[in-house]
Amino acid sequence: MLDPKVKAYLESHQPAILEQLKSLLRIPSIANVEGGMGGEPCRRAAAWLAEYLEGLGLRAEAAAVPDGPPCVLAFSDQRPDRPTLLLYGHYDVQPPDPLELWQTPPFEPDIREGRIYARGANDDKGQLFAHLAAVEAWQRAGGRLPVNLKLIVEGEEEVGSPHLEAFMTAHAARLSADAAVLSDSEFFAPDLPAITYALRGLVAVELTVEGPAADVHSGVHGGAVRNPINALAAIVAALHDERGRVTIPGFYDEVAPLEDAERRQWAKLPFDERQYARSLGLEELSGGEQGYSLLERRWARPTLDCNGIVGGYTGEGAKTIIAARADTKITMRLVPHQDPQRIIEGLRRFVADHTPPGIRASLTVQSSSRAVIVSRDSAAMRAAAAAYEEGFGRRPAMIRCGASVPVTEVLQRCLHLEAVLMGFGLPDDNLHSPNERFALSQLWGGAVTAASFMQHLAEQRQGEKV
Amino acid sequence: MLDPKVKAYLESHQPAILEQLKSLLRIPSIANVEGGMGGEPCRRAAAWLAEYLEGLGLRAEAAAVPDGPPCVLAFSDQRPDRPTLLLYGHYDVQPPDPLELWQTPPFEPDIREGRIYARGANDDKGQLFAHLAAVEAWQRAGGRLPVNLKLIVEGEEEVGSPHLEAFMTAHAARLSADAAVLSDSEFFAPDLPAITYALRGLVAVELTVEGPAADVHSGVHGGAVRNPINALAAIVAALHDERGRVTIPGFYDEVAPLEDAERRQWAKLPFDERQYARSLGLEELSGGEQGYSLLERRWARPTLDCNGIVGGYTGEGAKTIIAARADTKITMRLVPHQDPQRIIEGLRRFVADHTPPGIRASLTVQSSSRAVIVSRDSAAMRAAAAAYEEGFGRRPAMIRCGASVPVTEVLQRCLHLEAVLMGFGLPDDNLHSPNERFALSQLWGGAVTAASFMQHLAEQRQGEKV
Repeated sequence: MLDPKVKAYLESHQPAILEQLKSLLRIPSIANVEGGMGGEPCRRAAAWLAEYLEGLGLRAEAAAVPDGPPCVLAFSDQRPDRPTLLLYGHYDVQPPDPLELWQTPPFEPDIREGRIYARGANDDKGQLFAHLAAVEAWQRAGGRLPVNLKLIVEGEEEVGSPHLEAFMTAHAARLSADAAVLSDSEFFAPDLPAITYALRGLVAVELTVEGPAADVHSGVHGGAVRNPINALAAIVAALHDERGRVTIPGFYDEVAPLEDAERRQWAKLPFDERQYARSLGLEELSGGEQGYSLLERRWARPTLDCNGIVGGYTGEGAKTIIAARADTKITMRLVPHQDPQRIIEGLRRFVADHTPPGIRASLTVQSSSRAVIVSRDSAAMRAAAAAYEEGFGRRPAMIRCGASVPVTEVLQRCLHLEAVLMGFGLPDDNLHSPNERFALSQLWGGAVTAASFMQHLAEQRQGEKV
Repeated sequence: MLDPKVKAYLESHQPAILEQLKSLLRIPSIANVEGGMGGEPCRRAAAWLAEYLEGLGLRAEAAAVPDGPPCVLAFSDQRPDRPTLLLYGHYDVQPPDPLELWQTPPFEPDIREGRIYARGANDDKGQLFAHLAAVEAWQRAGGRLPVNLKLIVEGEEEVGSPHLEAFMTAHAARLSADAAVLSDSEFFAPDLPAITYALRGLVAVELTVEGPAADVHSGVHGGAVRNPINALAAIVAALHDERGRVTIPGFYDEVAPLEDAERRQWAKLPFDERQYARSLGLEELSGGEQGYSLLERRWARPTLDCNGIVGGYTGEGAKTIIAARADTKITMRLVPHQDPQRIIEGLRRFVADHTPPGIRASLTVQSSSRAVIVSRDSAAMRAAAAAYEEGFGRRPAMIRCGASVPVTEVLQRCLHLEAVLMGFGLPDDNLHSPNERFALSQLWGGAVTAASFMQHLAEQRQGEKV
């Protein structure tokens, strides 16, 4: 049972905690601006967090990251007899466009029907705040934190955490811990908590094709000049076959087949495909590969998607040109045990093989990370499962997630830590979309869960010591 | 021989005429703004022209066009014993973007190395001014115009002349004439004048594909949600086969095969494919259908080109979304005797057949016009050929052009006039591109040619009367 004083503090301090979260949400800390430096808002968010954490009695700093926005570090008093927990979060957010689809401005948090709406309300400022509320409650009402807490809150998660590995390697000793936790995932359903034990990896690239030196008249030159937009469309179209499989040679060579046990468990999950489709405004869900269930396609199969495309004239009316160039952004979601470098090389060769005469194509890699899969039965996992029972009254489902959280792979490789992905979000929180939101019931349940998790971790260690 | 007084006037008044042209070029009369209404600059250009033409002794007006920018009309004194010539031009211009590629601003005309640089310098303000200079010379130095002149200068050519047909039909009686001339085409080579006897038609459409109701997370939903950008790329890619042919069923059914005589004449034209490629910044010219010569592909074969494409995130860095929609603008160039309506219906069916489940596609027609082909041996054609000898010292080649000038088809259908396409532009004038230009030698040679054309037309009529 969670310390009653901690629980009582969380219940009685909701308005004040919410005000703090709103202050952080007002900072438009978008990572991919100013050449990836995050700009002034990211620096402001980092400074805000460092000051806030100092106020909770931690030693905190907004540590400089070469060529990137600062990384917030914070440490509680470290006691040798206590387990050390590393908490990760990110203060950067996705760009908010298309702005016109937001009901209230993305950086003016608004509470409606028990939910807080803002860019970052869930991902990840809101979920991070569940843990920060737990820290506050333990420090102010529980005497002190039951664990040695270390915090790292980065500012480049939404652009693939390009500097996190170097930073974590440089600070490996300071960040060493017994367990790691982060909340950047979600419940399986509104009433079914979930721990995510696997995430897909990510390769993000930009593909540019170029033709004539300048835009040329499509009437005068049409039929002579190879059209870069049409050529790009042909390359993109060739990347999938008619069964929805990615056609890059070798793309599936290293894909770990799904365990039968997992497949059976997933089939039992309460998942209404039609309702899921409707929540996205769709009649049919026909993306991905034929021959796999919807959850298998989202969680355990690799994908390739264009995230954006642009070329030629895109204004009002018509302009009769053959454009000089066209660009597309492509992300591939990888599963265990695909190697991002091999996938990138495969795509590079594919593009070269599919570039017609009269067109030059070039590929720029923006980020890459491996998929992650962790043990479903570690001490930290057991502590997390017990904490969910305390916070939400129900044991969590063990699920995978199709998204990428590069830090999990970096934690594994640099600090030898298997992160517990303790999700508090809900599936319809509009992540990366207009009207992103976070249910307050999830925030407060998450805060109790986070506080309980720390206590369970500490008690396990005490038990081991006896 | 052209009246020596007219010729002398043209030689001695070049600076003043050039200043007038520059005044017109300074007006950014782009048609496709304000919902196709052309906006204030188009109204200003029309008013400028009407005032200028009044100053030349013509009765002129900027006539209102319902839902469009005004159309300039002007009339000389009409004498029953003289042939009536209808001169067409357009004062609207293409949008100037990408602005950063212009060496001098597009609406600040600049003269460098014997050329005038500006948007519209050639197309069509500059070419129109060759005729206006001829009118001025005849009125001020030649006593009066040798023909009954009627002028129509529209403001929507670059968006497919959507209101021209209705306007011309409504004013058919006022615009009746014996011959029509326009200069919106070009020399075959810097030293080889050309009369264009055929133009391709144009179908311009916008294709929109829609998927989820809003942009969604490409990690969480990738593999489930059909991606509108990838779907659009697949539709676009399917529109051509591997031999460069358009795959819309029936697309080539009505295409008139090329006459052997034309094919032989074209093969003899002095055309350096490598130099042409280099002028476009290209190594290879592999656009269009296999099995046809370069000129055949540009002049006598239909094409399909995307002029622009946009969807999803196109800003700096990465954004891991599956976009809600994607759009492309497509133009098809038609040849005799393709029917635009049948082509549009074919494309509509093709898109429906190639739209996968989970995607909604819609097609909006922006404009359409048939291809035009006129007699190569009319009285007006003979007058034009003789005029070129006077203006440029060489008989013109008889060529086709891949571009579309919808007015030629409207003139044929509404006024039963076969237009003489008396081009004064040069092939490297950067039409529709940054740094559009017009050689001053072409302007002055064009002015002499236009003046001589009027005289030859009048003399032919006198001959007939004798």
